This record gives sequence, C-alpha cells and structure tokens, in this order.
Amino acid sequence: MSFKIYLSGEIHSDWREKIAQGIKDKGLDIDIKSPVTDHQASDDCGEVILGAETEAFWKDHKAAKINAIRIRKYIMDADVVIVRFGNQYKQWNAAFDAGYAAALGKPVITLHDEELTHALKEVNAAALATCSSPEQVVDILAYTLN
Amino acid sequence: MSFKIYLSGEIHSDWREKIAQGIKDKGLDIDIKSPVTDHQASDDCGEVILGAETEAFWKDHKAAKINAIRIRKYIMDADVVIVRFGNQYKQWNAAFDAGYAAALGKPVITLHDEELTHALKEVNAAALATCSSPEQVVDILAYTLN
Amino acid sequence: MSFKIYLSGEIHSDWREKIAQGIKDKGLDIDIKSPVTDHQASDDCGEVILGAETEAFWKDHKAAKINAIRIRKYIMDADVVIVRFGNQYKQWNAAFDAGYAAALGKPVITLHDEELTHALKEVNAAALATCSSPEQVVDILAYTLN
Amino acid sequence: MSFKIYLSGEIHSDWREKIAQGIKDKGLDIDIKSPVTDHQASDDCGEVILGAETEAFWKDHKAAKINAIRIRKYIMDADVVIVRFGNQYKQWNAAFDAGYAAALGKPVITLHDEELTHALKEVNAAALATCSSPEQVVDILAYTLN
Amino acid sequence: MSFKIYLSGEIHSDWREKIAQGIKDKGLDIDIKSPVTDHQASDDCGEVILGAETEAFWKDHKAAKINAIRIRKYIMDADVVIVRFGNQYKQWNAAFDAGYAAALGKPVITLHDEELTHALKEVNAAALATCSSPEQVVDILAYTLN
Amino acid sequence: MSFKIYLSGEIHSDWREKIAQGIKDKGLDIDIKSPVTDHQASDDCGEVILGAETEAFWKDHKAAKINAIRIRKYIMDADVVIVRFGNQYKQWNAAFDAGYAAALGKPVITLHDEELTHALKEVNAAALATCSSPEQVVDILAYTLN
Amino acid sequence: MSFKIYLSGEIHSDWREKIAQGIKDKGLDIDIKSPVTDHQASDDCGEVILGAETEAFWKDHKAAKINAIRIRKYIMDADVVIVRFGNQYKQWNAAFDAGYAAALGKPVITLHDEELTHALKEVNAAALATCSSPEQVVDILAYTLN
Amino acid sequence: MSFKIYLSGEIHSDWREKIAQGIKDKGLDIDIKSPVTDHQASDDCGEVILGAETEAFWKDHKAAKINAIRIRKYIMDADVVIVRFGNQYKQWNAAFDAGYAAALGKPVITLHDEELTHALKEVNAAALATCSSPEQVVDILAYTLN
Repeated sequence: MSFKIYLSGEIHSDWREKIAQGIKDKGLDIDIKSPVTDHQASDDCGEVILGAETEAFWKDHKAAKINAIRIRKYIMDADVVIVRFGNQYKQWNAAFDAGYAAALGKPVITLHDEELTHALKEVNAAALATCSSPEQVVDILAYTLN
Repeated sequence: MSFKIYLSGEIHSDWREKIAQGIKDKGLDIDIKSPVTDHQASDDCGEVILGAETEAFWKDHKAAKINAIRIRKYIMDADVVIVRFGNQYKQWNAAFDAGYAAALGKPVITLHDEELTHALKEVNAAALATCSSPEQVVDILAYTLN
Repeated sequence: MSFKIYLSGEIHSDWREKIAQGIKDKGLDIDIKSPVTDHQASDDCGEVILGAETEAFWKDHKAAKINAIRIRKYIMDADVVIVRFGNQYKQWNAAFDAGYAAALGKPVITLHDEELTHALKEVNAAALATCSSPEQVVDILAYTLN
Repeated sequence: MSFKIYLSGEIHSDWREKIAQGIKDKGLDIDIKSPVTDHQASDDCGEVILGAETEAFWKDHKAAKINAIRIRKYIMDADVVIVRFGNQYKQWNAAFDAGYAAALGKPVITLHDEELTHALKEVNAAALATCSSPEQVVDILAYTLN
Repeated sequence: MSFKIYLSGEIHSDWREKIAQGIKDKGLDIDIKSPVTDHQASDDCGEVILGAETEAFWKDHKAAKINAIRIRKYIMDADVVIVRFGNQYKQWNAAFDAGYAAALGKPVITLHDEELTHALKEVNAAALATCSSPEQVVDILAYTLN
Repeated sequence: MSFKIYLSGEIHSDWREKIAQGIKDKGLDIDIKSPVTDHQASDDCGEVILGAETEAFWKDHKAAKINAIRIRKYIMDADVVIVRFGNQYKQWNAAFDAGYAAALGKPVITLHDEELTHALKEVNAAALATCSSPEQVVDILAYTLN
Repeated sequence: MSFKIYLSGEIHSDWREKIAQGIKDKGLDIDIKSPVTDHQASDDCGEVILGAETEAFWKDHKAAKINAIRIRKYIMDADVVIVRFGNQYKQWNAAFDAGYAAALGKPVITLHDEELTHALKEVNAAALATCSSPEQVVDILAYTLN
Repeated sequence: MSFKIYLSGEIHSDWREKIAQGIKDKGLDIDIKSPVTDHQASDDCGEVILGAETEAFWKDHKAAKINAIRIRKYIMDADVVIVRFGNQYKQWNAAFDAGYAAALGKPVITLHDEELTHALKEVNAAALATCSSPEQVVDILAYTLN
C-alpha cells in the first residue's frame, strides 16, 4: 500500500526534482506522478497526434483535453495533491487542479513564496498545509508516513 | 423550478451587472448568486468578525474560509457556474472555483478575452462554453431555458 | 412534489406531443422537459451564439456542448427519463442519454417499434419498461402516480 | 499501477487488434478489456446458459443482461473508455456505453470516420479526444503514459 | 420543509391506515407514500399496460419493474423508510426495500411482531428503531418532529 | 431558497436562543434546526416509546438511535452545521456530529471558549470558522447571506 | 485483477460448494466470499464475544451487527453478488443483501427454484440474471471471464 | 486482499499494542494503521515543519491539519475503524473520527469501559460493536476473517 502523490503546477523550476530527491533520500515509499512537463510537447500534443488546426483556440482545446486524461487519472489516484505556484505566470491550471482535488476530498498541499499569500488565500483555505520550500513538503510526507 | 447560476471571478468590471440586466431584459427565470464582491469586506471579514491577527497569512486564512461558506453553498446549488477572468490579476480563486465546479459535475461557462485563450486552455477544456462577452452568456442561458 | 420526466430522442415525429396530451388528459401532475427540438436551432446554436467556425467538427462541438447544459440539467432533475428511438436515423444521442441516465440510477423507459428490439437490447436491458406507444408511456406514468 | 482501458463498440473490423498491437509495439503497461466480441455467443448467451425463450424480446433481454455484468465491471474499472463507431449498423450499445462512462466521470475517447462527425456530435462533446485511426488512440495512450 | 416517509411491506392489514390516522390526529406535517397496495393491480400492471406474456416469469418481471419506478422514487425521496413485516408470507420485497434504503443511508424503522425478531435480526441490525405497533411508529415520528 | 442551519452540541446554556434572536434581529431568512434539547426526553425516548429495558446500555442505545433519525436528517439538510462545546461535560455527540458533517462536506462552524482551543484542534481543523460567541456566529451568517 | 463474488443466502444446502467446485473445475480466477455459514456460530457470536444478554432481541442484535461487519465488507468488494433463496425459511437477510447490493449498483444474480418466481419478482427485477442451478451461475461467471 | 483497520483515540494506554499482539497471536492477515501516537510530535508537527507561531490557536491549527492528512487517508482506506475512549481526557478527536467514519459508511467498533456508556451513547448508536477490552476487538476481527 504505497502512498501516491501528484505534483501539479509550475514547470519552470526544479521543485519536482527536489521533492523526488528528498523522498529518495528519506527512503519513503511514495509513488510520484506529474503532468507532462515538457512545455512544447504539452502544448502541441493535440496537433501532433490528432492533426493541425487553423484556430489557436481549438489547437489548445485538443491539447488540453488530451492532457486532462492523464491529469484526472493521477489526481483521482492520489493520496495527496501538491500544487506549486511560481511567482511568474498565471498558472490557472494549477489553481484549477487544486479546486478539482479539493472537491474530490483529496488532501491538498500548496507550495509557494510568501509574496503570493494574499493572491492564493482561497486556495490555501482549502489546503491542509502551505509550504514555502520543497523540503517542507518532504518533511510533511515523511511525518505522515513515519 | 427556476434555474440557478453562480457568477465567479473578476470583481473589477461590470460583467455581473450586464448578465443580470440581460437576464432581466429577456425575462428569464434565473436565480443569480455571486461571492461578496466588496473587495474590502471580503478581505477583512475574518478580522472584522472574529478578531485581529498579527500574521497576514492567518488574516487571509480566516477571511477566505468564511467566504468559502458562501461560495461552496452557491456552487453546490448552481445549475451552471459562470467563471469570468479579467485580463489583469491572477484570479486564482476563479480557476479554483472552476476546478471545484467541474469535479462536482457542474456545467461551467467561461468568460474572457481572446488574449487569455492559451493561458486558460485547461479551464476551457473542462467548460461547456467559452464566451467573450456577457451577452453571449445571456444568449446561452436564454437558449437553454427557451 | 410534482413528478419530473425528461423526453430524450427522436425529433421527427409527434411522440412528445402525444405524451404531453395524455398527461394532460389524465390530469397528472408531471413536469415535462425536452431538449431543444428545433433541429436547425440545435445544430446552429454554437455558431449563432459564439461565432462561426471553419471546421464542421468544431461547429458541431460548440453546439453539442451548449445543448449539453440543458440536457444534463434535465436528466439530473428527472424522476424518469423516457428515450424514444425512431426507425430511421442513428440517434446516438438518445442512446448516450440512456446510458448517462442509467449510470446515474435514473429509471429509464424506452419507446420504440418492435423491429428495433434486437438493436436496442443493451439499452432495454437497463430500462425499467419498454413501450411501443406513447399511450403505454402515459399509462405507466399514471399507474406510478395513481 | 498499470493503466486499464475498455474497448467498446464495433465488432466487425480489427480495430481492437490494431490497438492491442500498437500497445504491445510501444511496450505500454496497459490492461485491455473488451466485451464478448463473438457475435453469436453474445446474442445467444441468455438462451444457452439459462434456457430457451419463445419471445425474441426476452431472448435478447436475458443475453443483454448477462453481457451487462461484464461490461459494467470493465467500464467501472477502466481509466479510459474507448468507443468505436463503424460506418454501418446502429451500434446503440456503443453510444450507451459512452453515456454510461461519461456519467461516471470516466475519460472517453471516440474512434470513427469523419463522415460520422455530425451524427456523433453529442458523444464527442463528452469525449476528451476524437480519433480517426487506432494509431491515434495508441499515440494518446503512449503520450498519457510516457 | 415537510417530512417524507415511505411505507414498505405488508399489504394485508391496516397498518398504513393506522399510521396515517395517527399522523393526522397529532397534526404532523408528514408526506406519506406507499407502493401500489392493490394486490391485483400490482401483479398485473405489466400485462395490462404492456401486453400479455406466455411465461409467468416475464409477466412478473414486467410488473415488478414498473412497480420499481414508483418504489425507488419514493425511497429516494424519503426521510424515513418504514418497513412492515406481517407474520405470514415471505415479503421478500419488504426486506429488499430495507436493504436498498439502508445502503442509501436512509433511516429505517421496522414494524413487526415479537415472534419475527430472530428471523429479522439482520434487518433490525440496520434499522434505527424496531416497533411492534403502528402507534409506536407514530410516536417516533411525533418525537422526531416535535 | 432559505438558508438552513443545524445547531449541534451543548444543551446547558442559552447559545441557541442567542443565535435565534440574533438571526431574528437581523432579519435573516434562516431555517434553524436543533436536536431535542429536553435532556430527560432525549435520554428516555427509547423506553418511553418502545418499552423499558433492564440494561442501561440498551436503554441508551434505543434512545440514541431514535434521536439519530432527527439529527441525521437535519445535518443532511443543513447548509451550515454549527457545533457548540461548553466547558463542562464530554459532549462526544457534538464532536461526532462535527465529524459526520465534515465527512459529508458540510461547512462546520465551531463555538467554544478559548480554553478549549487545544482540546478541539482536530475539530477546528475541519471547521470553516471558530467562534467564541453566538454573536460572531450570527455575524458570519449575516455576512454569508448579505 | 481477479474477479470477486459474494455468495449470500441459504445455508442449509450445498450450493456454495457446488459453485466453488464449478469455478475450480473451469479454472476461473475468482475470489469467493461468504457470510459465516456455521448457523450456531453466527447466531451466538454476539454473546460469545461480547457477553450474555437477558433479552432475545439484544442477543440477536449484537450478533447481527457483528456479522454485518463481514457482510458489508464483502458486498462492497464484490464484482457480483449471488443471492440464493431456498424453498424453506424466510431468509430475509438474503433479500436485504440483494437490496443493499442493488442500491450500491452491484450486479446481482439470483438462484432459486421456479416455485419462488412470483414471491421473488421484485428481487429478480433488480437482478441481471436469475438461475435455477449452481451450474448456471458458474456458466455465467465463465462466460463473463472468458 | 488483506483486511485494513484504523485505530483511533486514546494514546495513554497500551490498547493498540494489545490489539496488535492479539492479531499476531491469531495469525490474522490485517494491516493496522494508527495516528501519530507520539503526543509531543503530534502537537508540534506544525511548528517543527512549517515554522513557529505566536498564537496557540494557529500552532494547533497547523499541526491538526498536517495530522489530518494521515488520519483521513487511513480512515478512507480502512475496512473497520476502531475507536478507543479512555476514562480521562475529552478525546474529541476520537469522537470526530467516529462521526467521520460513520458518515463514510465505514463499520465502527468502539472500545471503552462501562462507566462511559451513557456519555458515548450517540457514538455507540452508530457502531456495529461496543467492546470493553482489546481482546473482544481481536475476537471480532478473528470471527470476521475466519
């Protein structure tokens, strides 16, 4: 009965690697899932697999729906959903995942810098912990599985 | 059996008033709910009702949880959840509401300018319609209730 | 506590009118809902409300999703979902509605000619009654509400 | 944690074999389930196991219900439900399965030729991807599991 | 917000009338629902409405499914399901209704003579009260609504 | 669409009256429900209605199950569940109600003195607000319904 | 992913052994669960484990609730629930289990002699197959898993 | 398919060890989970992992939410939730867990001395067994798994 986590959000920093390394270092039995984090592949998967579109909206639509197959599966399976917000970009998909996970009753942990506290207050209100570093996330997982 | 909608998101433009006016003009039997849209009241409700905090995080936390009582109730009751994203601000609460509504199986309609199409592709992938004007939202409601 | 029914399926015969008339004649307290049965309006609602498409697929997609707002709402609200299959046309939306209703645990009544018995066996296997005339549907409703 | 798919629909072409081969060629860890695709066995299972019927309706009814034991189990277990519509036949059971899966919140992928686009618009509106070849289905699965 | 009850089980004594009278006497705001208690009508509804059958099994099957439309609706709507077992007859439908209601989380009250205590122990284990007279049922309802 | 609240917990102070008065004073459209707060009646209802018991355990058991009919109904119906803990008594039923409501996804508001903060930390962790006076509860309700 | 079945009902004939033997003979990968079928142990478990009772009702109550821990677990886990009714005894627990399973959406197969057809019509109306011999049950399982 | 239990409640006596030893002695295939039972670690985890707080309320809040990640996971996974109440302390978290488990439909077994019978009547009303010793709990598990 290994523990399952899903890492949603920011793809421009190495927070996922840090969490993975911390889990490995502490020898935790945790299965880690993420969305496709190759930005180009994620944006283009609709066109690459199903054919080109003339409208940007439908190009995005096809890609986002294919990505949703993976994302929903891993959120549904997760014991904890960890959502990272970087200081840049709108990352509405991260907040969407947090809302989706919360409505399913999944424990949510957020990870962001202090300067985002006010903007993320509604997301944090639905989270069971708010971390400012990947190490804190790992510490919570280690404590939970001790 | 009147129809119920919840209007989530941006509070700095008059899109809610336009939708309400359009519904009135067309004589649609629709019950409209919104979050508290008085920015100051929404931010301060935790401290005003339950006492001051020394930490910004907990001030926000108390307020966001009180607001959640209202928001969850109205999303849960809604037949359709309409989520508006303005061109400014991060509005993570709007994306969170969209995810929450989607996970509950509520029909979601998004409302935003074309320039946000790419950033909102995951939210739109879960929506049943994407509108660029309040008039379009009203037209969909009118069509649905005709 | 009036009874609510949803009439899904064929739009090229007057079965809905016959059921409505039968309900009226028997004085049954039943709220009747249907999809938009104006074929043109139903096909075109996406383009009419949200703008033209160059691809037939996306034209259909936009329309079908807008129609889904109405259909899901009424299936969700229904005490009984009645699904009519005519002898012509593929009417996959009718079978889709039947599956959707069945998975939600809604009682389903099918209405079709005997020649369709074999082709509809899986749908009928999930139905609580299979009728061959609108009068039979009305008789079941009258019996249920007597 | 292998991925589970259910292949619903057409039994007169080799699309299931092509998907199975593609999954094998790409070395994907996917558990593939299907209905009983032996047409005769599927039609006759009620009579063969439980005894002959004089009425065609009840012969079909018994068979369809026995088949439902298998179908519901595999849809319930599936991570993705893939529904194939051939150009011939009414295949209402395929559309029924798609509706059933959609109501359970299962990701649905449809597979059909372009000429069926309009007739399948409501089914496609509930799908996360619409493919025109088994290869595209395999590509989506490979992308999802990469 | 009137209270809703469903009276399942025995149709050969006047326990339903006694409960209805008791509710009236105490002026309780309770909406009372029952199955069709006309034995003949209940047994024959399948054939009367949908046509004769040559096999007893299918005659019963058609009737029981039509009756299920009503029974499920009223159990689903009920705040309390009251299940009466007489000393005669097998009344498996009553025990079935009790199991159905229990699985839905509906409060169940049983009503039977003491001599059935042992035979009904599993049903009573899922009930919130076991009564030996209609008066006791009414007293519980009056207490609950006081 | 009036708002519904359930007031769980302490029966030895007038907090329910204060909340009711505050709601009345502010003219809020709120339907207020409570358990039976007549201590003796609540303890004795099992014996009074269904007959005497020789064992204290079963006397309590019968009474608690009858009370559960009312309590579950009102928690299930409630938009917000308010749980009051006095400084005396164990009030495990109040904590049980809070857990029950939380698992159903109902918003919970707790009401207790500061000295109970540590002992109630798990209950407060599941609550959307923690109040120290009935006035604060009323203010939250007024804010929510403004 | 072995298939799981639960065998509910009659304990005075060897139908369970016959099904188990048939499953073994056909080499089906099926996990078989049953209630405690030692009549005395099942009746007495409450008193044996938790202490003697003076009232027959409470003796039965304690036993039935302990048995319910096992029964609910195995029904919840089952892919198919098979319910056997012998010609003797009231076996209300079997009908209760059938109702419980049906409400959870579990496929139900009934097993009984033809003379019970009328008395079991409501239970059969919720079943996906009605068998008259253990061999037929095994044949359905073999067909389902082929 | 090993059986899973969660042991909630009192941390000041060795009841968990006794149950674990009894399970081992009887060779039962049971997976045992508990909350963090190191009192200090449980109280301080919020501050230790996420940083110090100036307010006792928020110190407790952070800790209780982190503990909730573990508790909810194990209650959700459990086949049976066993809740122990010692004679001292308020242990509202134990009663909260019992309510939470009951609302999820999980079988609950309580474990407490006779003197707590009256105070725990509402919790026991939702339990499938009430034990006075760890040995009785083990006997029920052994009986359930025999």
